[in-house]
Amino acid sequence: MLKFEPFYQEYERTLDAFSLAFSTIYFEQMTIAPKKGIPYSNEMLSRLSKQAFIIENDPETIKKIKEYAKTLPEGSLEKKEVDYRLEALAQSENIPSDVYANYVKVKADSELAWHEAKEADNYEHFKPHLQAIMKETLHLLEYDPKFNGNNAYDVLLDRYEKGMTQEKYDAFFNNVKEKLVPLIHEIQNKPQINDDLLHETYAVDRQEKFMNVICDFMKVDFGKVYLSTTEHPFTDFFSSNDARITTHYYPDQFLSAILSTVHEYGHALYGLQMDPAFEGTMLTQAVGSAAHESQSRFLENHVGRSHAFWQANYNQLVNLFPEFKDVSVDELVNMINKTECALIRTEADELTYPLHIMVRYEIEKEIAKGNVDYDKLPELWADKYEEYLGVRPTNYKEGVLQDMHWSTGYLGYFPTYALGSAYAAQLYATMEKQFDVKEALLTNHFEKITNWLKDNVHHYAASKSMAEIVEEVSGEPFNPDYYTDYLIKKYKKLYNLD
Amino acid sequence: MLKFEPFYQEYERTLDAFSLAFSTIYFEQMTIAPKKGIPYSNEMLSRLSKQAFIIENDPETIKKIKEYAKTLPEGSLEKKEVDYRLEALAQSENIPSDVYANYVKVKADSELAWHEAKEADNYEHFKPHLQAIMKETLHLLEYDPKFNGNNAYDVLLDRYEKGMTQEKYDAFFNNVKEKLVPLIHEIQNKPQINDDLLHETYAVDRQEKFMNVICDFMKVDFGKVYLSTTEHPFTDFFSSNDARITTHYYPDQFLSAILSTVHEYGHALYGLQMDPAFEGTMLTQAVGSAAHESQSRFLENHVGRSHAFWQANYNQLVNLFPEFKDVSVDELVNMINKTECALIRTEADELTYPLHIMVRYEIEKEIAKGNVDYDKLPELWADKYEEYLGVRPTNYKEGVLQDMHWSTGYLGYFPTYALGSAYAAQLYATMEKQFDVKEALLTNHFEKITNWLKDNVHHYAASKSMAEIVEEVSGEPFNPDYYTDYLIKKYKKLYNLD
Repeated sequence: MLKFEPFYQEYERTLDAFSLAFSTIYFEQMTIAPKKGIPYSNEMLSRLSKQAFIIENDPETIKKIKEYAKTLPEGSLEKKEVDYRLEALAQSENIPSDVYANYVKVKADSELAWHEAKEADNYEHFKPHLQAIMKETLHLLEYDPKFNGNNAYDVLLDRYEKGMTQEKYDAFFNNVKEKLVPLIHEIQNKPQINDDLLHETYAVDRQEKFMNVICDFMKVDFGKVYLSTTEHPFTDFFSSNDARITTHYYPDQFLSAILSTVHEYGHALYGLQMDPAFEGTMLTQAVGSAAHESQSRFLENHVGRSHAFWQANYNQLVNLFPEFKDVSVDELVNMINKTECALIRTEADELTYPLHIMVRYEIEKEIAKGNVDYDKLPELWADKYEEYLGVRPTNYKEGVLQDMHWSTGYLGYFPTYALGSAYAAQLYATMEKQFDVKEALLTNHFEKITNWLKDNVHHYAASKSMAEIVEEVSGEPFNPDYYTDYLIKKYKKLYNLD
Repeated sequence: MLKFEPFYQEYERTLDAFSLAFSTIYFEQMTIAPKKGIPYSNEMLSRLSKQAFIIENDPETIKKIKEYAKTLPEGSLEKKEVDYRLEALAQSENIPSDVYANYVKVKADSELAWHEAKEADNYEHFKPHLQAIMKETLHLLEYDPKFNGNNAYDVLLDRYEKGMTQEKYDAFFNNVKEKLVPLIHEIQNKPQINDDLLHETYAVDRQEKFMNVICDFMKVDFGKVYLSTTEHPFTDFFSSNDARITTHYYPDQFLSAILSTVHEYGHALYGLQMDPAFEGTMLTQAVGSAAHESQSRFLENHVGRSHAFWQANYNQLVNLFPEFKDVSVDELVNMINKTECALIRTEADELTYPLHIMVRYEIEKEIAKGNVDYDKLPELWADKYEEYLGVRPTNYKEGVLQDMHWSTGYLGYFPTYALGSAYAAQLYATMEKQFDVKEALLTNHFEKITNWLKDNVHHYAASKSMAEIVEEVSGEPFNPDYYTDYLIKKYKKLYNLD
């Protein structure tokens, strides 16, 4: 158990209580709340946020925390925790209130404009808002002491995954580009896998029954996990005993709900399996996006798309979906892992996914430098898709308007999606050396996987960076080759290359 | 629209934001929250409550509100609203914090002890806690300026339904006792109605389909209403566009879920149909318990148990439940309205219900006077049941331990359950004079009923007391004869008396 001064403990718990209220109201809005009540609950959310902001940024308290930080022994978990807190406060405490209010307004306008622009497929409508929100995002950086003399994009990258810089991401994406782009082009010339059977129409209640099978197989503890449905699947983590995950059932995309649930359960497990002593502290909150994504992608890709996973659940699948009775496990797994160059990131397969991210990463670097010509952004986007994926959007909504991240000022977030997948691959390679993962799946010992993740990753939460964890677990620093080599091997086999 | 000073508007809206958070977290706990997360969310609830309490009871703000009240014109809605606010604050603002903290502790212990005592059927375990919580409840009254020189029970009764006193309730319950007790005794000697068919086993999914029929019939707007299931049905009202109701399906009590939903929808409609200008003000919050109960009992008894209601839905019932095909509408309605003297209030029929309340009312008067001998309380309870209902509990859980109200210090709340039913009867008698309610039901015009309730009752919220509303609507002061005469007429017919 961490030992904090009572004033600090109280401060954190109070903020945590607000967080729980925000999570609950938001989760509720996404799942069960009557639609007509949402404008009111949004207004109330903003009022509660204001109260939380006042408590969080109280100058007297911040001063006290700074003094307190000095008394804590270097290297202790308590010191690390309070430093995270001060780092988070430093991002906001120096921002003058009118500057912040302006940012909030610009952001709200930008989010709305993006929705409208995507709906109308009209980039011109979004362009001035995109320029404005990016300008404000970069402007706010100037109040962060970390920015002083540093590259803006580096400061942003570090916010979403501690320790990450442009230099490190460049090395990572160069590896991805050099190794995967030629492979993807090669596959485009090979005969394609027929996965039509996955896109027949399957009633949702049958899909739900199979979801129960999968959840049983993963030994999901429904005393701690609530599974619901939403338009876009997501996970929220309420406490060390309460995680919420959602999925979406499509009648003609039988796999989508399953893989979404497996993915989101990866996020949920991370939250549930952290050291409970860290509950409500920055040691849970400061877990980076790439770290989190590494766990969801681990379950989704290395488990949910694996041969053993489907072999273990094959009989139950055929019971519920006799349509698959003439399909072998091998054929099924081939269908599930089919790769195809397409325009939409969120629907991308495992192999092409990092290229979607790379396109955005390369554009973000230019935005952060202030180099981007917003008039030509859609073309820049299209050119990169053509170069890397061999496809070119013919409209905006399948191109530059497809993601909402930039409209909310998220700059530096996208690359964590790819980095997380790469962390996962290195962790998986290590896990495979330590026990027979395939056998664990085939003999119904899913807990061997989740316990390994708990002991080696989840337990630490943010008390160690994911780079440190990966290095300690695997015995070598983060190495993107694990990821790209894994994909090359997997897809060469799948498409009979070499 | 009400016009308040900005400081006051801000104060109320902020408290409302906390209320929304409390309602959401509580509703969520009762419906979808994973069980193991609840202790944590309870802890967070108490932290948020503390923040709300600090804001609500800030002495500077209260001073400002008192000054503000003096500037408002007498008779204006704004004045009424602020007076309600000050009245609510007066109940708590003078209580020393250590006295309040002690009360909170005694109450928490008492609630827990009641659960344990009921489970173990052990009154002795609960007795000291009951004594303590009642002592504390009465002690806190001394800090309320309204108590000064007044009867304790009168002050409490007024809190749950403005304007009510022991004198008024005595008159009401004397009427109930004189008119209904002899009738009930008379019915006990008549042949009983056979309602076995209502207690066959009916699968929940069939019951749910019929619930959809009933909700369609009542024209429930699911853009504003969310219907869920919980152990004990309840309603919470989130905003003028968001009400939550719950029900409980029992395989062998087909009627229970239907009548619970109709009852709770009565509460929901009250909230949804108030003047939207009152949203978030004391003019919605100060609606009394009897007023609220009058609306739920109105729908449950005068609509949901009526001949026309079942006649209108009979074909759909028989479609979904062919078991009823040989039962006529008359026979069905007789089954639904069967009366039986039993021990449990929450399962009581329409006729015996007020006697259950009267037992508690008579005991509460003694408690409030400090006259009750806690050693003999179970016997006092049993004697009264025997006298009025002709049945005598043989254990505590079907006797004095059956309700949780006293364990939480609710004293003066019970009588509102009966008074609400009586208000409903007088309103219904008036409605019948103004349009053909039966025809409205038979011709699928449920909105005629709900619109009438909106225009005559709901719209006013707490801007008028229910006694005023009843008098204005019916043209005469509240008169309990409407209730007792209605019950006498209905049950004499049902049991072929006279």
